[in-house]
Amino acid sequence: MQELFKKAWEKIKEAKNIVLVSHINPDGDALGSSLSLYPILKRMGKNVKVFNVTKPLPQYLDFLPNFDKVTDKLPKNVDLMISFDCGSFDRLGIDEKPPFLINIDHHISNTNYGDINIIDPKAASTSQVVFEMLKTNGVEIDEDSATCIYTALVTDTGSFQYESVNEKVFQTAAELVKCGAKPDFVAKMLFQRDRLSRLRLLAKAYDTIELCCEGKVAFVEVTKEMMEITGAIKDDTDTIVNSVRAIASVEVACMLREDDDGIKISLRSKNYADVSKVAVKYGGGGHIRAAGATIKDEFDFNKVKNMLKEDLKEIVKVEE
Amino acid sequence: MQELFKKAWEKIKEAKNIVLVSHINPDGDALGSSLSLYPILKRMGKNVKVFNVTKPLPQYLDFLPNFDKVTDKLPKNVDLMISFDCGSFDRLGIDEKPPFLINIDHHISNTNYGDINIIDPKAASTSQVVFEMLKTNGVEIDEDSATCIYTALVTDTGSFQYESVNEKVFQTAAELVKCGAKPDFVAKMLFQRDRLSRLRLLAKAYDTIELCCEGKVAFVEVTKEMMEITGAIKDDTDTIVNSVRAIASVEVACMLREDDDGIKISLRSKNYADVSKVAVKYGGGGHIRAAGATIKDEFDFNKVKNMLKEDLKEIVKVEE
Repeated sequence: MQELFKKAWEKIKEAKNIVLVSHINPDGDALGSSLSLYPILKRMGKNVKVFNVTKPLPQYLDFLPNFDKVTDKLPKNVDLMISFDCGSFDRLGIDEKPPFLINIDHHISNTNYGDINIIDPKAASTSQVVFEMLKTNGVEIDEDSATCIYTALVTDTGSFQYESVNEKVFQTAAELVKCGAKPDFVAKMLFQRDRLSRLRLLAKAYDTIELCCEGKVAFVEVTKEMMEITGAIKDDTDTIVNSVRAIASVEVACMLREDDDGIKISLRSKNYADVSKVAVKYGGGGHIRAAGATIKDEFDFNKVKNMLKEDLKEIVKVEE
Repeated sequence: MQELFKKAWEKIKEAKNIVLVSHINPDGDALGSSLSLYPILKRMGKNVKVFNVTKPLPQYLDFLPNFDKVTDKLPKNVDLMISFDCGSFDRLGIDEKPPFLINIDHHISNTNYGDINIIDPKAASTSQVVFEMLKTNGVEIDEDSATCIYTALVTDTGSFQYESVNEKVFQTAAELVKCGAKPDFVAKMLFQRDRLSRLRLLAKAYDTIELCCEGKVAFVEVTKEMMEITGAIKDDTDTIVNSVRAIASVEVACMLREDDDGIKISLRSKNYADVSKVAVKYGGGGHIRAAGATIKDEFDFNKVKNMLKEDLKEIVKVEE
């Protein structure tokens, strides 16, 4: 890894026109990692742009330093592209490969689409890989860069709560605070700017929670009517399924959301159940602990629930 | 501080019968800190008890190693008492002072009621003071002890989100993980054992959210009827006011709860308003960012809200 870090940095030093890119619908790690290099490369006198194909970008990340520099217009005459947190080239929303591409990521599924691929599946976030690269090359991390790297670390570990959190994660956080990252500021920006519409939607949705399979499975519903009455937007539904999974007895939580084209199901498991299997069965996909699918042209919540109950009963291993 | 740590440890080494105590209605820091010394003192061959006057103890902390050892019967023939996280002697629920008392805390308001007082207001948790004491004296921290110290750190920093979180907090967390603390296990125990009754109560309560003072003040109501319908317990109301404060525009959130003796008000501020002033006015108390009071024999929510609006208007500095 040390060798790759050095090789990549040599390439960066040589380049003049650099673009930093991340995956469509970026999360904190994608945007944070790409923005973390912006002030550093600027300082080095590079002509640097930050590109993301998504428009609008998620508002909750608007506090990241240089957030306003992110453009959805891919710059021309690029010598070097660096991609962050993106498992495959097609998720960048870019048609043509650049002259040279450095691919920095922490997803084990990464397709190694770069000319240099720096993939560390043990890292808790892509930003941690960036941090290691900067440290290895003795690059000074300024406050803006530290804030971006730290935010990415917080969002990708659920505030230091996921399995990926190890000794190194906390050491990295300590060093970032030393560089100027402010944990309470980042936390306030991420978690203290909630929407009233979201709380109003939770009020409606939580009223529909239904437990089955000895309490191991929970369903929660979000109808179009609820969205309309509360003035909620789709982003407001994001954390509902996680909150329902947090019920003590629950192994799998399932949110059913009425969309234009059918019912979208979002599945989350807590300790052992593989929900990706169920999602794949209905034409969706995802990971073991988080997966989803849309059941097209179907709008009957009870029908879908009864169908899913059979599948979920299997994966939570309840014998009846 | 180093000298105090050494002096305290000498006293601990001399003692035979030791009791570890913490404040009434203990939180994660109080119980975690007191339990963290239990395996260490046992290993040293001490006769050690852990006392807390509260019964029952908060269930969400039942995963702390040796939680079942905590007793509400104060042992007799104690040589040494060590108190944790407790600002004044009367909050221990103990009538008589012991022969010798070591008082370990991080509250600036601590009354120095011990024979040795180790108070570090800069520490993010009392458990961090304990950790420093152990390190200074070269004491090995085992997995059980590390889990207790880590849990206390997590609960007292809101998962590394409060102003108290600095470089040292993360360095401490890193060292605790090295000693065997498991961040994902602790997070699951603390945050993934929610009650359905609580979510059902949130559904009712969130429906009552009312904003005023240009969105800077938010009220939320919890009635006895809501508690009965949802089967919720008083603990289920704990986080409601924090969630309401998290709305972007809100500086002060106020929960009104219908109790047997009147309406309990819980106040939380986000950035600048001093809510303790308002609580004191109604015979209660607390801190700048979190305070409360009970308005006795009053059961009219609207009357109380109108009264509070006048007070809160002042502290959020809205001129009308």
